[in-house]
Formats: sequence, structure tokens, C-alpha cells
Amino acid sequence: EDVQGRADPRNLAINKVGICDIRHPVSIAQRVGGHQSTVATFGMYVNLPHEFKGTHMSRFVEILNAHEHQITLESFKAMLGEMTERLESDNGHIEMTFPYFIDKYAPITGEKGVMDYEVSFIGDRIGDRIDMHVEVKVPVTTLCPCSKDISDYGAHNQRSLVTIRVKAHEFFWAEELIDIAESEASCELFGILKRIDEKAVTERAYENPKFVEDVVRDIATRLNEDDRFRSYRVESENFESIHNHSAYAMIERDKDQPNG
Amino acid sequence: EDVQGRADPRNLAINKVGICDIRHPVSIAQRVGGHQSTVATFGMYVNLPHEFKGTHMSRFVEILNAHEHQITLESFKAMLGEMTERLESDNGHIEMTFPYFIDKYAPITGEKGVMDYEVSFIGDRIGDRIDMHVEVKVPVTTLCPCSKDISDYGAHNQRSLVTIRVKAHEFFWAEELIDIAESEASCELFGILKRIDEKAVTERAYENPKFVEDVVRDIATRLNEDDRFRSYRVESENFESIHNHSAYAMIERDKDQPNG
Amino acid sequence: EDVQGRADPRNLAINKVGICDIRHPVSIAQRVGGHQSTVATFGMYVNLPHEFKGTHMSRFVEILNAHEHQITLESFKAMLGEMTERLESDNGHIEMTFPYFIDKYAPITGEKGVMDYEVSFIGDRIGDRIDMHVEVKVPVTTLCPCSKDISDYGAHNQRSLVTIRVKAHEFFWAEELIDIAESEASCELFGILKRIDEKAVTERAYENPKFVEDVVRDIATRLNEDDRFRSYRVESENFESIHNHSAYAMIERDKDQPNG
Amino acid sequence: EDVQGRADPRNLAINKVGICDIRHPVSIAQRVGGHQSTVATFGMYVNLPHEFKGTHMSRFVEILNAHEHQITLESFKAMLGEMTERLESDNGHIEMTFPYFIDKYAPITGEKGVMDYEVSFIGDRIGDRIDMHVEVKVPVTTLCPCSKDISDYGAHNQRSLVTIRVKAHEFFWAEELIDIAESEASCELFGILKRIDEKAVTERAYENPKFVEDVVRDIATRLNEDDRFRSYRVESENFESIHNHSAYAMIERDKDQPNG
Repeated sequence: EDVQGRADPRNLAINKVGICDIRHPVSIAQRVGGHQSTVATFGMYVNLPHEFKGTHMSRFVEILNAHEHQITLESFKAMLGEMTERLESDNGHIEMTFPYFIDKYAPITGEKGVMDYEVSFIGDRIGDRIDMHVEVKVPVTTLCPCSKDISDYGAHNQRSLVTIRVKAHEFFWAEELIDIAESEASCELFGILKRIDEKAVTERAYENPKFVEDVVRDIATRLNEDDRFRSYRVESENFESIHNHSAYAMIERDKDQPNG
Repeated sequence: EDVQGRADPRNLAINKVGICDIRHPVSIAQRVGGHQSTVATFGMYVNLPHEFKGTHMSRFVEILNAHEHQITLESFKAMLGEMTERLESDNGHIEMTFPYFIDKYAPITGEKGVMDYEVSFIGDRIGDRIDMHVEVKVPVTTLCPCSKDISDYGAHNQRSLVTIRVKAHEFFWAEELIDIAESEASCELFGILKRIDEKAVTERAYENPKFVEDVVRDIATRLNEDDRFRSYRVESENFESIHNHSAYAMIERDKDQPNG
Repeated sequence: EDVQGRADPRNLAINKVGICDIRHPVSIAQRVGGHQSTVATFGMYVNLPHEFKGTHMSRFVEILNAHEHQITLESFKAMLGEMTERLESDNGHIEMTFPYFIDKYAPITGEKGVMDYEVSFIGDRIGDRIDMHVEVKVPVTTLCPCSKDISDYGAHNQRSLVTIRVKAHEFFWAEELIDIAESEASCELFGILKRIDEKAVTERAYENPKFVEDVVRDIATRLNEDDRFRSYRVESENFESIHNHSAYAMIERDKDQPNG
Repeated sequence: EDVQGRADPRNLAINKVGICDIRHPVSIAQRVGGHQSTVATFGMYVNLPHEFKGTHMSRFVEILNAHEHQITLESFKAMLGEMTERLESDNGHIEMTFPYFIDKYAPITGEKGVMDYEVSFIGDRIGDRIDMHVEVKVPVTTLCPCSKDISDYGAHNQRSLVTIRVKAHEFFWAEELIDIAESEASCELFGILKRIDEKAVTERAYENPKFVEDVVRDIATRLNEDDRFRSYRVESENFESIHNHSAYAMIERDKDQPNG
């Protein structure tokens, strides 16, 4: 007899039950074509109606094993559907987070380097509806407008981490969100820079000072202009080079809500 | 002239702007009386109306410096009010997270040890309303009912981390939430155990097997019975001793919502 | 003119200079044949003689980019040689750490799962000599002999992390170290276990209690018997299920030292 | 009968056995006078001769509990002696790491802020000899000389983390090491800065460009001049604002070795 299948007398449904902190090799479709091999950390959950004592944890792992190759937004949705059915649940939630690599070319010499980002696919199935979110974490340079304005020379700048999470019903590439983040910072980062490239990025940042508030506003403006993105949250955390703490700003919007 | 004070043409309000990852010594009132010195990490944010270019980051730090001693739930509310006023904002949000120590006595020998927990105070001011949340992270033992049931001897068990976050309008101690988490696990943890104590906790866990689902349901039952707690979220993450991943469950409820 | 190439008047050589915390996709040769794609974090360093002001940071990244595919212990040594030559140094040091996945089969049902480990290659070039270290971090189950001995039933057990670092001049597979760690714990972990498998691992751990001291001694005994391993360090950290702290033990030995 | 006390047939001594990842409130003597309350994470270990099966883990915690108040370098040495005696060992090792707060005054306005550092005390007892190490982790600003030199305006800068570990037989304050790190960076950090202070630190960093190699050399020069410091290791990790990786340099020296 199966302990998990026993009736439960407490009359309490569970919102989410499943497994987390599980790593798996995956292959992700790229905008430039082909697939990229990387390693993802998964969380996989379903709801549990009040009448069941427990879920079947090993089934989550079986579903993960069956889908390990070539994950796309489409196959990710299929995994979400399969999970809720095999676990006999109404609702399901899968999150996968992975480092993602993009070839970038130094601005002057064109030398090829590699930049790493953190990308997440987040899927929610609530009854028959599936909501897909994509999140990107994009490291950038920010240069302080106040410091530039008041100083006779120089301006403090630092690495910042921009996080964009969007919900969309139409297809888009995670690379599109990365492009937006990089183009709205003081400057983007590169894997490799020769001396003449370093001059270019130093001057570009100095010409383009932005507060943490400016970064999230300029990104939000871009997301407002694209109807595919139905809701979003934009954050920037600036690891201040003059303090041992961070400056932070966040804008969120749901276009499908009244006043949204 | 102050760059942050300039008018902003983008017509975009910012939901949260401020500082984070800032550490500060604090002193916390204890249920047993007196205060306890510890170290907190703060996040402090306000909203920024669309017409302002930037907030004044240094004011957040000034408010933090002015309140460093003997933080209680009351003085924490006062800091929240002061912050929104000095930053000329409608809404404000402060989070502080700190290790918190409680003397515990071994179950048989009574030897005194110390247990450490992670506690957070989270305050939201939205216009004239202030909502206070308290969160505790409580490490416990869980022992698997299925493993006990099917095995001729033994049962796998492990350390688990229970997280409880509640909203309340009436006063309560973080220690009350810790008590609930510890009493509803298979067994609580101790800083020090002699041999005869180790026998007691081993047997107590074996007599009291609980799935991750049981832990969150039994804690939710306790929170349902206490009218001071108006909303809650209960999570448990079990660091499975037979897998390299975790089992997880979560229940949340808002009693003040229709059907809540 | 190149600032880094200037003469330096301080007369101080630098032991290690280079880049760290850089992620790169890699492909690793497997004992079962073929290669596995994963993501590595690198640290790459050389010494800097006292007469030079600075090293050339971009060259490290160029070397990394040139070697991104199919890293073996052999190609790793080649990268080490190329780095010290291009940086015009006597000594060089490269560390790469990556999650590594191995298919494992549940002990009774034989169901196929995946286990993840953390593996590091560490290479030192000192003049003409190259020393290669391999480190594996292997999660296992440990079950407490004292708890079993004194209790009428049950025994506390938990996930533990075994770390083995060895130096060898002859070839060996990281998988061999993982095998040793798993076979000398109370029980090994699995990605997936059905009910009948869970019975098997529960009972195996109960039949095989080990203190943290036993785990490192039994692994050291195995490493002592294999002449390929010239020096080693064995650690185990047990995330005690009855405490909020860890038990830890370590044995290290250099067979090539007098009395080693 | 005590399982840990049994004879062990494997004939293998253990280099270090004990407990780690244990947090405890502590009180640390300050250079400005008085004590500061903070929270430390401890590792406590002894050697175990080959003839004993196990150590007595609960005694480590008892020793920690007996020493929780007002830890100085002197009382830390006493704890080390007490531990090796109570555990009947020849050698012992204790590490404690804690956030440490220092009041700092903004360079122009003099406004008082607080800076946080990470400090470690590390004690080794080997037979009758006790070696004490102190380590400080000091966040600073570094500004790139190459970027300044080649650019028409601006220069990339960032937060860097300087780590200094020294061995000394004579008394000194951790604050002395912090002073050295801060004075040899491009600029030090502050908890609070008003606009006129921000101008001062921006210009000071621009006037004072330093490679990661310069930072460790200039600190090593200072440590070489002070005979109290018998050995040291100086590291700097620069979280580059133009890359997503770090630049790193390290110098170490033991003055008491031949050629040291």
C-alpha cells in the first residue's frame, strides 16, 4: 500500500508541492540558429487537493528525464502539460534557470568574445490556461550622472545587474530582452576588449550617464512599446563603487489589467 | 543644482527605488526579556512619482543610522513612517533580515545550548496603511513516513528548512512562529545534545514521521486557529538524504479575502 | 604606449595575477565514452616578475576562447603551457570547476536517473614541471553509529558532502574518485528511486553506519592502496539532521614526502 | 559504552575533526575602546590520533558556549588551549569570521556613517606552539590606469575586495589592516556621502588610478615595513565594470623563512 495515496483528514489543499534545486543538462534553441548546451536548475510543482496525503515525487524526476534534450519554449509548455496530467493536478508550475552564452564582438577591433547571462523560463498552468514568463539577468555598466556633473574629472561607475521578467503570449527570444537591457545601460559588457576597445567603452559610458532610476525607466519604455510583452517587471541593482551597498530600482506593469 | 531633483520627461513612475544589501548592527527585543544584539541586512525603498528624475539615496542611510539601536516592531513602523516622509513618497517598504539566537535546553540532560534562526521584519506603507509581516526560517528534522513504512528497519531523515511568513495587526513574538515550526516537524534541532539526548531525539523523530506535505499542513492548521495571523505563507524544503535535490511544499492563505 | 608594459620600481614580484569568476561552456571526456557538455567557472593566473608593472588580462580570455571545446586532462595541460608562454611567465595556475552528470540506475528497479557532482581540474606549472590535481565533490548519505547504537529504533542520518582532491602523474578518471566516495559512505544518492528502491537504500544506510571520521578514513585507505594517487586530501562535511551545524573531518597525505 | 571511544583498527590518524558552520553571538574589543556585538561563524577542529574511533563533538559546542562573551585575541588563544586539552589532542585549529563595523566620517561634510568589513581570527595550536592569523576583507574602489590613460575622458572603476591575512606574534588591531587596505586603493568606501563628498571621492579615485597589481604591491610594501607582521598574503579581486569577470592578484611572503 502506498502511504502517499492515503486519504488526508486535515481538509487542507496544498498550493505547491514538488521538487527543487535539481540540476539537469539541457539544450536551448538560439536566435542565431542551432542549440546551445548548458546546465539548468529546476523547480517543478503541482497543487495537491485536500483529499490526498502526498504527491509522487519520483514522477517529477521521470518527466524531467524524458525532456532533457533541446528545450524550447514549446517543449517547455509540453513538459508543463505532461506534469500536471501525470500528477493528476489542476495546476502546475515549472521554473528552469541556466547560464546562457552569447558571442559578442569587441566594439572597435571586432575580436570575438563570449558573454554569460542567466536566463529563466517560468511556466504556470492554471486549469486550461498556460502563462509563460521569461526572465533574463544582464550585467551592465552604469555611470553616475550626479558624480559626473559635480566632479571636475571622472565619474564613479560600476557593474550593475539588470533583471527583466516578461509575460508574453507570442513568441520572442530571450536575446531580445538582453539586447534591450544592454542598449539602455550606460554601456554593455564584453568578454574581451583590446586597448582601443577599452577606450571606446570608457568614453561611451562617460557620454551616457544613468541613474538606477534611468535604467529601469528606459527599459520600461522599450517594453511598453512592444505589444507582445503583456506584463513585465524591470529591476536594476547597482553595486555602487563608492559604497558597500547597492542602489536599486524596480518598475512593474500588467498591461492587461484595468489602468495597467 | 541637484541632478536628482530635475523634472523627468518620460512620464513613468517607479514602483520601488532605494538601497539594498546594506548591513547594520541592531538590537532586537526578546520574548524572554531584554534585547539581543545581532546584525541585520536591510532593503529600504520608496515609490517615485513620474515627475521626479531621482530619489535621494543618502537619506535612506541617514534614517537607518538614526534607528540603529533596539529595534522593535513599533520602532520599525516608526522608521517606515519617517522614511516615506523624508523621501516625500506615498509608499515605502523596509525589509530587515538577521540571525536570531535562542537558548534551548537538551531534552533529557537539560544542557543549555544556543540555536540560530533567520528572522525578517517586512513593513509596507501604502498611503496611510501599514502592513507588517514577520518571517522566520526554522531548521528542523523530517523523517520520511514512506521510508519507515516500507523498510524493515531505519528510515531516511534529514535537515529541512521551514519558512513561515505571516501578516498580523496585533502584536506577537517571532518566537511564537519558531515554536510552531519546531513542534510540527518530526523533531526540533538543538545546539548541544549528550548521548542520552541523542537517543531521545532519534526516537522522537522515528515515532513522528512526516512528509513535506504533512509539515506545511500541520503548521497551516496551527496558523488557521490563531486569529492574530491574517495571512500566511508556509514553506518547507527538505534536503533529502537519499537524493541530491530537495522536496518542497507550500500553503498560503489570506483570511481577509473572500473565500480566504 | 602600453601602461601595463612599463617598468615597475617597487621591486616586488606578484605570486599570482590573472582573471577569475569567468564562466565558459566546455565539453568533458567521459569514462563511458564520448563527451559531455557543461559549464565551467575558471580561474587563470601567472606569476609576474618584479620588473613588470602589469600583466595582459585580455590574453587570458583569448587562451580560454581558443580551448573551449572538448577539454581533457591532456588539453588542459596544453592550455596551461600556452598560457605561461603567451604571458611570458615561469609559473602558471588554472582551475576549472563544473557540474558533471553521471547516469545512475536505481538499485532494485534499475530505473535510470541522473546524478550531478562538482568536479575541478587544477593545474600548476612551476618552471618545467606540471602538477595536475583533480577534485570531486560527492553528496552521500551518512548514518550515525552512535544514534543507532543507543536508540531503540531509528538512527539519525543526513546528506553529507565528500570532497576528494588528488594529485596524480598517471591518467585516471574523475569517475573513479566518485566511485570511491560513494562506496565508502553509509549509502550513495540517486536521482530517482521507486518505493522498492527506497526500501533498499534505507536499509543499506542502516546496516552501514559511519561517523564522519569513518568516511574519511575508509576513503583514505582506498587512496593509500592506489599508487597513481601521489597526494590527496579527503574531507567530509555532514549536514547533521539533529543540529544546525556540520560535523567535519579531513585527512591529507603526500606519499612523495619523507614520512608521507 | 561510548561508540566514539572504541579502538580503531585502521591505523589512520585524522588531521582535522570537529564542527563547522556554527553561528554564535560574540563581542569583539575595538581599537576605539569598548566592545562591539556581532555574530560569528566558527570552525573548530582537533587532530585525532590513529587509535581512537571518534572525537566528542558535543565538547566543541560546550567550549564555544563557555566563551561567548567579549572575545579578544587573548581569550581566543585561551579557547584554543582549552579545546585541545578537553579533546585530549596535540593540535587544534579555530576559525571565527564575523562582520565588523567601523564608524567613518564623510571626507568633506564629516557626516558619520558606518562601514562593514569581514574579519577572521584563525588560531593554530601545534603541540606547544600557537600561531595566530588575522584576516580582513575590505571593499574599496579601484580605477583603471589604462582606461584613464587611453580615454579622452572618464575611466572605468569598480568595487574591489581586498583580503589581507597576516601572522603576528605581537599585538595589533584588525583596524590597522583595514587602514592599510583603504589607504592603498584608488579610494576608500563610505557608508554615507553627500553631494560634495561624492565629488571628493570621485576626483580622488581619478587622481589615483591603480591596477589590481598596484593594489597588492602597495599593500605588501606597507606590510614589509612592519616587523610585527611575520607572514602575510594580500589579495585583490576587482569586479570589473567593463567585464562580467574579475581581475585578481596575490602576493604572499613568510619573513621567517630563508629567502622569505
